[in-house]
Amino acid sequence: MKKVLVTGSAGFIAYHLIKKLKDDYEVIEIDRKTGHDILDYEALTDIFSNHKFEAVFHLAANSDISTGNPKVDFNDTFLTTLQLLDKCREHHIPRFMFFSSSAIYGESFTSFSESSGPLKPISHYGAAKLASEAFICSYAKNYGIKGFICRLPNVVGSHATHGVILDLLRKYKQDPDNLVVLGSGRQFKPYIHISELIDAVMYIWKYADAWINIYNIAPIGRTSVRTIAEMIISGQITYTGESWVGDCEMYEFDTNSLTRIGWSPKMTSDQACKLAIEEIKKEL
Amino acid sequence: MKKVLVTGSAGFIAYHLIKKLKDDYEVIEIDRKTGHDILDYEALTDIFSNHKFEAVFHLAANSDISTGNPKVDFNDTFLTTLQLLDKCREHHIPRFMFFSSSAIYGESFTSFSESSGPLKPISHYGAAKLASEAFICSYAKNYGIKGFICRLPNVVGSHATHGVILDLLRKYKQDPDNLVVLGSGRQFKPYIHISELIDAVMYIWKYADAWINIYNIAPIGRTSVRTIAEMIISGQITYTGESWVGDCEMYEFDTNSLTRIGWSPKMTSDQACKLAIEEIKKEL
Repeated sequence: MKKVLVTGSAGFIAYHLIKKLKDDYEVIEIDRKTGHDILDYEALTDIFSNHKFEAVFHLAANSDISTGNPKVDFNDTFLTTLQLLDKCREHHIPRFMFFSSSAIYGESFTSFSESSGPLKPISHYGAAKLASEAFICSYAKNYGIKGFICRLPNVVGSHATHGVILDLLRKYKQDPDNLVVLGSGRQFKPYIHISELIDAVMYIWKYADAWINIYNIAPIGRTSVRTIAEMIISGQITYTGESWVGDCEMYEFDTNSLTRIGWSPKMTSDQACKLAIEEIKKEL
Repeated sequence: MKKVLVTGSAGFIAYHLIKKLKDDYEVIEIDRKTGHDILDYEALTDIFSNHKFEAVFHLAANSDISTGNPKVDFNDTFLTTLQLLDKCREHHIPRFMFFSSSAIYGESFTSFSESSGPLKPISHYGAAKLASEAFICSYAKNYGIKGFICRLPNVVGSHATHGVILDLLRKYKQDPDNLVVLGSGRQFKPYIHISELIDAVMYIWKYADAWINIYNIAPIGRTSVRTIAEMIISGQITYTGESWVGDCEMYEFDTNSLTRIGWSPKMTSDQACKLAIEEIKKEL
């Protein structure tokens, strides 16, 4: 069975991706949480020497977009990518799948298309993802490593480790009479269910075939934080009214590129949120 | 007199930029060639402690686009930017001017507009410039450092340190009977004269006023390498016929954004090349 490496393997998306990948591959996992750090050069060297990988699925990143420390994003989100690319080059790994983000687009436009520009990320997280994309392109071109870049919106579903739905459900459990929501509640974004995301990622993996393949992935429509809060509680909701730096409050994804190669979402963003709320409730 | 820092101060563009900046500023210079390295953290700390800068003009970079070693571009082009941004953050420097490149666009389109996407740089140089732009955006947004990003085409003129005109003039001097030109001669790109470039840069510096200001700069039209070779020699020209990885053979710049704020080029690319040939001939 062919081997693939999944980084950030203890995370939310990886949990579901690995389950799917195991149909076709032997999956080797690396995650700081389980004691293996991509930035530990010797450990990384060992992994690539001990296994011949068909591909790397790079999910490891600092997933806290609101961090005030650019060094964290630089190291955990960008430098991890560069270290992996160098190893892929050294070991002639033919394929590299990267999980990018809506955060690369910034707030200059509200509809994000892959052909939008200029990209002006407003968070270090978005900057580190864009910087990663840049070097994935140059490594892909120069060393024949086929690159796959999936740009993700908010992702929801079982085994979530962070995000608005998990936060609100935890708060609701502590105080079911008054749900306190950070921000105005008016943030309006696409939420994709993890099952649809994995489906889209595997579709791109199977059918995209350029030297570099960049695709937005999104559900149908968008959901406001207010709607999510009202899905969780029928009682009182208090909005703090304040947002935080680095949060792009409203955006939608243009997914025409993905539609053109034959994949379309079946679930709306609202349906994804509802399903995720049911799933996460059972886990709390 | 207010102070500004110019990095890569021993280079071609810096030579002309510093002359211009001296009209308005006291210019502090840093360049590895003169013994001061941005990546020497203590030296950089000293410079920022000893001077209160109004702005940083960041020109330092690995200017050899054809390098096979991504580490060089990572360090010299990207990490230098990040170190400077960190110092600007620490010392509350209000403005940061970055010299970016046509190389960020890759080869997916031939007309490069700031609104073009997706950006797929094919050289590590282009990747490192794009990665730099990404973090300039997030630093600008989060720490109030006004960002200026000038995307440059080929630049020609006196005191050039590299580039096709200098290369061909040197070869011509060695053997005036047969000029050997690397590649097909069909590369067709915009060449801006350094005098016009500095004029455009200072215009953007003075009149652009967003939190982040991204502008293509270019002359009128384009020039083929064949045309440049024929400007230099009336005798025999031999084309090797081979190109090199990372070279984007044909592109043009869309400069409508710059036109909209009031600056337009007066010189054609051909005129710029002719003038540069005359200037550089005198220096050889």
